[in-house]
Amino acid sequence: MATTSCRALILIGDGLGDRPVPEFDGLTPLESQPTPHLDELAARGECGLMDPIAVGVPAGSDTAHFAMLGYDPYKYYTGRGPLEALGVGMDVLEGDLGFRCNFSTVVPDKKGRLIVDDRRAGRIEEGTDRLAMALNNIGSIDGFEFQFRPSVAHRGALIMRNPLLRVSGDYDEDSPPLSDADPHAEKQPVLEVQANSPALAPAATALNKWVHAAYELLKDHPVNVARMNHPDGPLKPANICLPRGCGVRPELPAFRKMHGALGGLVVEVGLIRGLGEFVGMEVVEAPGTTGGYDTDHLSLARTAVAALDRTPIVLCNLKAPDVAGHDGKADLKRQTVAMLDEMAGVLLESLDLGKTVVVVTGDHSTPVSVKDHSGDPLPILVCGHGVRTDEVRDFGERPCGRGTLGRIRGANIMPILTNLMGIAHKFGA
Amino acid sequence: MATTSCRALILIGDGLGDRPVPEFDGLTPLESQPTPHLDELAARGECGLMDPIAVGVPAGSDTAHFAMLGYDPYKYYTGRGPLEALGVGMDVLEGDLGFRCNFSTVVPDKKGRLIVDDRRAGRIEEGTDRLAMALNNIGSIDGFEFQFRPSVAHRGALIMRNPLLRVSGDYDEDSPPLSDADPHAEKQPVLEVQANSPALAPAATALNKWVHAAYELLKDHPVNVARMNHPDGPLKPANICLPRGCGVRPELPAFRKMHGALGGLVVEVGLIRGLGEFVGMEVVEAPGTTGGYDTDHLSLARTAVAALDRTPIVLCNLKAPDVAGHDGKADLKRQTVAMLDEMAGVLLESLDLGKTVVVVTGDHSTPVSVKDHSGDPLPILVCGHGVRTDEVRDFGERPCGRGTLGRIRGANIMPILTNLMGIAHKFGA
Repeated sequence: MATTSCRALILIGDGLGDRPVPEFDGLTPLESQPTPHLDELAARGECGLMDPIAVGVPAGSDTAHFAMLGYDPYKYYTGRGPLEALGVGMDVLEGDLGFRCNFSTVVPDKKGRLIVDDRRAGRIEEGTDRLAMALNNIGSIDGFEFQFRPSVAHRGALIMRNPLLRVSGDYDEDSPPLSDADPHAEKQPVLEVQANSPALAPAATALNKWVHAAYELLKDHPVNVARMNHPDGPLKPANICLPRGCGVRPELPAFRKMHGALGGLVVEVGLIRGLGEFVGMEVVEAPGTTGGYDTDHLSLARTAVAALDRTPIVLCNLKAPDVAGHDGKADLKRQTVAMLDEMAGVLLESLDLGKTVVVVTGDHSTPVSVKDHSGDPLPILVCGHGVRTDEVRDFGERPCGRGTLGRIRGANIMPILTNLMGIAHKFGA
Repeated sequence: MATTSCRALILIGDGLGDRPVPEFDGLTPLESQPTPHLDELAARGECGLMDPIAVGVPAGSDTAHFAMLGYDPYKYYTGRGPLEALGVGMDVLEGDLGFRCNFSTVVPDKKGRLIVDDRRAGRIEEGTDRLAMALNNIGSIDGFEFQFRPSVAHRGALIMRNPLLRVSGDYDEDSPPLSDADPHAEKQPVLEVQANSPALAPAATALNKWVHAAYELLKDHPVNVARMNHPDGPLKPANICLPRGCGVRPELPAFRKMHGALGGLVVEVGLIRGLGEFVGMEVVEAPGTTGGYDTDHLSLARTAVAALDRTPIVLCNLKAPDVAGHDGKADLKRQTVAMLDEMAGVLLESLDLGKTVVVVTGDHSTPVSVKDHSGDPLPILVCGHGVRTDEVRDFGERPCGRGTLGRIRGANIMPILTNLMGIAHKFGA
């Protein structure tokens, strides 16, 4: 086989794909923004369109990255809860249930039901560490041990453990083991958690007790008292913690075992970091990155290039295009495309394309007209070592649709890379 | 339904696909070699790119032909050993284990371990029939019956049979039932065969005894004594026989049952012949073919055309491009492309494209820069009866990437053909 010294860098513009924007004469933000460096990579490579999961299916960042890193999400994805917990550094053991949580604000109604007033507790920024300590004082309920850890702003993760609980195989794997307490909408009551199988009924009961215990502990907590008496006017109290996205620990083979090479991650999203750490990728922090428009995108690119010295395959994700998509800001999205282009410039300056394979694409589309993830395919380019260059000279949704890479899936990316790197396993003889 | 008198010929350039070659100005051997006949077929047909197994996955000739003949290799392929045995005409029964074997040269070290000195016993050409008779004298061990048959040069096949052994379902189907005795490298000790499940432990023990018995029988065999005392200097003795590629009998529906028509094979590779015979295809020998650069490629094409009279679907494989790819010889590979083009010329001369469908492609890429199979997709053309012609006028990797056939898989070929032939089954009403 060819050089194992070949390296591969995957550059992801999070939420990069888009739809025609009227004020850009029907072009997408990517098509309308001049991108000299991305165009040069496209000209030196082969282009196509990529569906992260399957044609027309809107992907999450998590499932898209599962697929792009070689883990079929239909086989391996067990929900966002356990990934969130892994992402904040919690141990998720076999048999554990993991959840994402929001600190929220609830108000009891006349019947005593807890009605959600603000799902994000006024986007609380401070004091969640102290609230978390209170939650961790709840301890065990009905033999289930609860561990909570706060993350950014109103967010957190919860682990529910019972040494006797053997979740695996005991439940319908097509839906979460336990349903959400979070109603996902305001003015709605907190939901009674349901078990998806009789074996899990005691777990549902314990979790419902935990949610109510959280309310009792938090409603008069000094942090909330201070919020309600804030000198600039009352802030919403974080008087409950609502779990959602329940899932068991994913069973993922190590990245090195899957692909025959070490992998590195330079990303701004905790969820993807959690996945990477779980599969034994080296997660590298890029200085000055924020996950927002003000991130140091050049630092992200330079850190990814440097990481190639230690791990032959590196994935780097710029979050900003997704933020602009969710915000519905076409001009801002175009600016984030310019950031991605400057990152491509760093790659062109720093990498020897005779010994490196570069992929540029997105993890899903977040059209500014949709303000959410959509199932539109993403442009993708593959250039460098061994690539059969095509005639596409312009990195954009429509130009890439004419490339010889054709229409591929996220799960095809790792086989394409390991093939070009010369480390793919032959199937057959 | 349309004419059942329609015929289909699949012409395979083994290992045809390639990557940009610097001395050909970045063109592939196929792109740089003038191919007037292939170009005419492309001009009269529809083109695309074909992944034999899946995007980026390097295919073996065996798995690729499984897929192209309509047998999903992920479902049907059970390893190369049983195919090799079938290819040399042995019966492989349900419950049998089949292996590929090499006659090798081993030297005992101080600890008595057998160290592989030459995996191919000096590429022994003569006397293997007599060595095989000695091996077949080993007979039964622990209730397992062993049958060996030599094939070309140092190669052979072994069947291990036990009327009481029910292998099916008793083992992890993702790995071979028994591991290899062949260490796949020289200066390494002969490996102790391991069973992949406790139920197979007695089989592993018996096979290990067989390997050692082979050494005892072969080390002083007159054939080897003669080799060591060769008048031109000592030749490596074929003093052991090392099994690898263990697998059970594949369960393949007959070709005619799968596709509603008889199939024929005109190929130079024993492995594909074994597959074809197993599924009831008519295997036709083309006079003057060698599997090498000196093969009579026109005889191969003429024999395939003639076979269409008896079997409506014929697959014809020219081995030479793969040989040139493995040898890393770009100029020679271009010459084998010229051979394939002359074969296309025979088809143009002999076939009525109003009543015939012709497919030209490869079974996998064997780039001269890689010297091994790679996962790069293959150009493919489909022309003749009923085909919607596109604008591609040039049969090559990149031109075909612009064709309307798009990016397809090996497993798509038989449905495309049977559809055009009018013998496909409608799914639904």
